[in-house]
Amino acid sequence: MDPRQLVNALEWRYATKRFDPSKKIPNHVWEALEGALVLTPTSYGLQPYKFIVMTDAERRAELLSHSWNQPQVVECSHYVVFTARTKLSETDVDRWIQRLSEVRGVPAESLTAYRGMMVGDIVHGSRGKSAHEWATRQAYIALGNLMTSAAVLEIDACPMEGIVPPEYDRVIGLLNSGYTTVVACALGYRAADDKYAKIPKARFIASDLIHKI
Amino acid sequence: MDPRQLVNALEWRYATKRFDPSKKIPNHVWEALEGALVLTPTSYGLQPYKFIVMTDAERRAELLSHSWNQPQVVECSHYVVFTARTKLSETDVDRWIQRLSEVRGVPAESLTAYRGMMVGDIVHGSRGKSAHEWATRQAYIALGNLMTSAAVLEIDACPMEGIVPPEYDRVIGLLNSGYTTVVACALGYRAADDKYAKIPKARFIASDLIHKI
Repeated sequence: MDPRQLVNALEWRYATKRFDPSKKIPNHVWEALEGALVLTPTSYGLQPYKFIVMTDAERRAELLSHSWNQPQVVECSHYVVFTARTKLSETDVDRWIQRLSEVRGVPAESLTAYRGMMVGDIVHGSRGKSAHEWATRQAYIALGNLMTSAAVLEIDACPMEGIVPPEYDRVIGLLNSGYTTVVACALGYRAADDKYAKIPKARFIASDLIHKI
Repeated sequence: MDPRQLVNALEWRYATKRFDPSKKIPNHVWEALEGALVLTPTSYGLQPYKFIVMTDAERRAELLSHSWNQPQVVECSHYVVFTARTKLSETDVDRWIQRLSEVRGVPAESLTAYRGMMVGDIVHGSRGKSAHEWATRQAYIALGNLMTSAAVLEIDACPMEGIVPPEYDRVIGLLNSGYTTVVACALGYRAADDKYAKIPKARFIASDLIHKI
């Protein structure tokens, strides 16, 4: 992609408040966005999250009152709820070692040192104490990745932090699953009358955000 | 961008361990990546972070021992340190209101309700207690955005969580600045002999990561 096109795509995107409910993301495009989610880079590759993709109208309507009544929840084409592990255990690490061993075609035993490094950090080590927060940060990498991926595919998106995670967990059926809701993202196509599409994009000036050394 | 091209770009990328130190990202490409960083979407638009872009060889060498001696720190073309606000104050919110008022050409007074909502949430409200963590999550959106942006521009990248933030703060001069290091990212071009480039990419299978409702 040309650098200028990338910046144009990121300028074009905005936190879409009103989606056109009649417009659905075509399957082949949605599959690419799911592919992007799966390919998200995470620390140690551990992927301590699950993504709930909601298209069912009734289940989404149940979330509305737990989302400050923001209409994106029901008007968008696909609604993604990002969940993160509530804590990390040796079983999580072993599941990842198993998968790595499978994909790389090497015995799990050959990954013992790597396993030890992960367990010593994220399970029993310093990061183990805040493992849910660490997992949440990984989910936010996925959120950033998804929003940028959507923008380059000309799909509109709105990140949703204004939600009530415990209620989401209840509606989605995450209670006692080991995963908990951390953030969400609505995706689809902006409604022709979304007035937010016309408001000039505001950011701090670059020199206030970027320091060069 | 074609959906297939996006997935190809994300398949192509990997956590680059060895960069070719002789290859530098051209200015016009780097400017687009800085543009992407600036355009990162954040909650309320508050952008509670700063990005430190390091090209100076000596300063980067100082970080090496605080980065598990990972050679990416010194071998990459551009090294970005992500910092997040240590806490959020009414001054932060006012700075944002001021900027919004400027860009939108409306009086700051017209944004009083919006200001109140932010202050009641992120300064004095429930999120105020964990404002640094909230700010860190926003920085991770920027990290995800930057890595995906780099991939579509065919720039290699490696996210760096294996760093010692207090030592980074000291080397960079962030002590008492109100910002603290949270993560970093090396960018540039993979070395021809980086063996990690050839290892099959491993992720959990899609149906283990994505649940559809």
